[in-house]
Amino acid sequence: MMADISRGRFITLEGGEGTGKSTLQHALAERLAANGIEVVETREPGGTPLAESVRELALHPPRSEAWSPMAEALLMNAARSDHLDKLIRPALAAGKWVICDRFADSTRVYQSVGAGVPMDFLKAMERSVLAQDVPDLTLVLDAPLDATAGRRKSRPGASDAFEVRPDDFHQAVRTGFIELVRTEPARCRLLDASRPADEVADAAWTELDRLLAARGQGA
Amino acid sequence: MMADISRGRFITLEGGEGTGKSTLQHALAERLAANGIEVVETREPGGTPLAESVRELALHPPRSEAWSPMAEALLMNAARSDHLDKLIRPALAAGKWVICDRFADSTRVYQSVGAGVPMDFLKAMERSVLAQDVPDLTLVLDAPLDATAGRRKSRPGASDAFEVRPDDFHQAVRTGFIELVRTEPARCRLLDASRPADEVADAAWTELDRLLAARGQGA
Ligand SMILES: Nc1ncnc2c1ncn2[C@@H]1O[C@H](COP(=O)(O)OP(=O)(O)O)[C@@H](O)[C@H]1O
Ligand SMILES: Nc1ncnc2c1ncn2[C@@H]1O[C@H](COP(=O)(O)OP(=O)(O)O)[C@@H](O)[C@H]1O
Ligand SMILES: [Mg+2]
Ligand SMILES: [Mg+2]
Repeated sequence: MMADISRGRFITLEGGEGTGKSTLQHALAERLAANGIEVVETREPGGTPLAESVRELALHPPRSEAWSPMAEALLMNAARSDHLDKLIRPALAAGKWVICDRFADSTRVYQSVGAGVPMDFLKAMERSVLAQDVPDLTLVLDAPLDATAGRRKSRPGASDAFEVRPDDFHQAVRTGFIELVRTEPARCRLLDASRPADEVADAAWTELDRLLAARGQGA
Repeated sequence: MMADISRGRFITLEGGEGTGKSTLQHALAERLAANGIEVVETREPGGTPLAESVRELALHPPRSEAWSPMAEALLMNAARSDHLDKLIRPALAAGKWVICDRFADSTRVYQSVGAGVPMDFLKAMERSVLAQDVPDLTLVLDAPLDATAGRRKSRPGASDAFEVRPDDFHQAVRTGFIELVRTEPARCRLLDASRPADEVADAAWTELDRLLAARGQGA
């Protein structure tokens, strides 16, 4: 994928609730734009009209029923397939950089926690749905739960099916993300997200160096 | 699965639009009930509240957008997972027989037609979602398209994303179902559905013999 210099770069932001993904997304988008790069900011689940309709169904199941982890994993991948087809792939092909707030790694981590979906099947789905479009860089925001507790509470909007889970669920999610970075060191970088937001953005920007250098625009 | 005599039997009805699946389902349910068997009639996509909500989204995508075959396959399996967990498995465990109007084979056939999803991935999803709960018997209703054209038009309700496809799509679906029966002869039976409905029901009833015999109630 790095071979085609005219293709945009695909950056995903991962990590637990309140670790600062959305905040970092906007900071990186601004810096890239200041470097003359056209950026598309998007999110998962969602990003396209059909994917957003799946997001709504997945995060707010009707009649307060619950999805199994297997059903969730399939729904997230259905949304992702539409998002890739209609937004991410066309943007990358047009030379734009895409920054996505959560992506396939969230499915790997959230739907495998506890008595979740076997990792082998999660990866098989991911391979089929992503095909060639694996992220060029995945920044994983990591912080102790007590550092993000206040940030999680301060966000607006009704809480969804994941936010209301108990602390040991969020602890297992944190461990899952750390394990992800360990198993995919070439693509993923763990960032200490307990620091002030501008320090996190500085650290993230350093990680973008190699992507920028590859197009002859090293920072 | 046949080892547990107290478990119900799982029968699925497959075939193109208007081949007579719903008609046959009711006829078989009546005959089974007359034999003292508790029967649950259900359908796919759907069968549970959450699965019906996915059905609505899959068959009637918002804003007249279209799902890709990959997204459709994932949605259908998400619905199926909920259907199995909350309706089919509990019913079978309680000794009830389940007759399902369309099931996993419809996903195999409809989502692989043309430039669809690779059969290997469809089967991998099926294995993960069904686990042990492969149907005991699958009756595949087969008829030439011109024999079912009138039946398709006579049905009530707004047409969905599949019914409006062109004839060569429905022809490919028919071929796909014939191929399915060829590759899974132990589970599947092809029934000539161009005959009058009562003759189709008689032929189907004969195929149920071995399931009935296994519980000591041969017809
Ligand atoms: N590094 C940080 N330090 C302190 N607060 C932060 C930091 N990053 C984000 N926040 C604040 O925490 C809250 C959650 O951040 P947000 O970016 O929405 O997290 P996420 O998208 O990962 O759930 C917001 O109020 C945000 O302003
Ligand atoms: N064997 C048959 N011969 C003639 N008409 C039939 C037969 N089976 C069903 N029909 C009629 O055809 C229409 C479609 O049948 P239906 O059972 O709803 O098909 P499906 O569920 O496979 O789409 C209905 O009006 C039904 O009464
Ligand atoms: Mg966010
Ligand atoms: Mg029907």
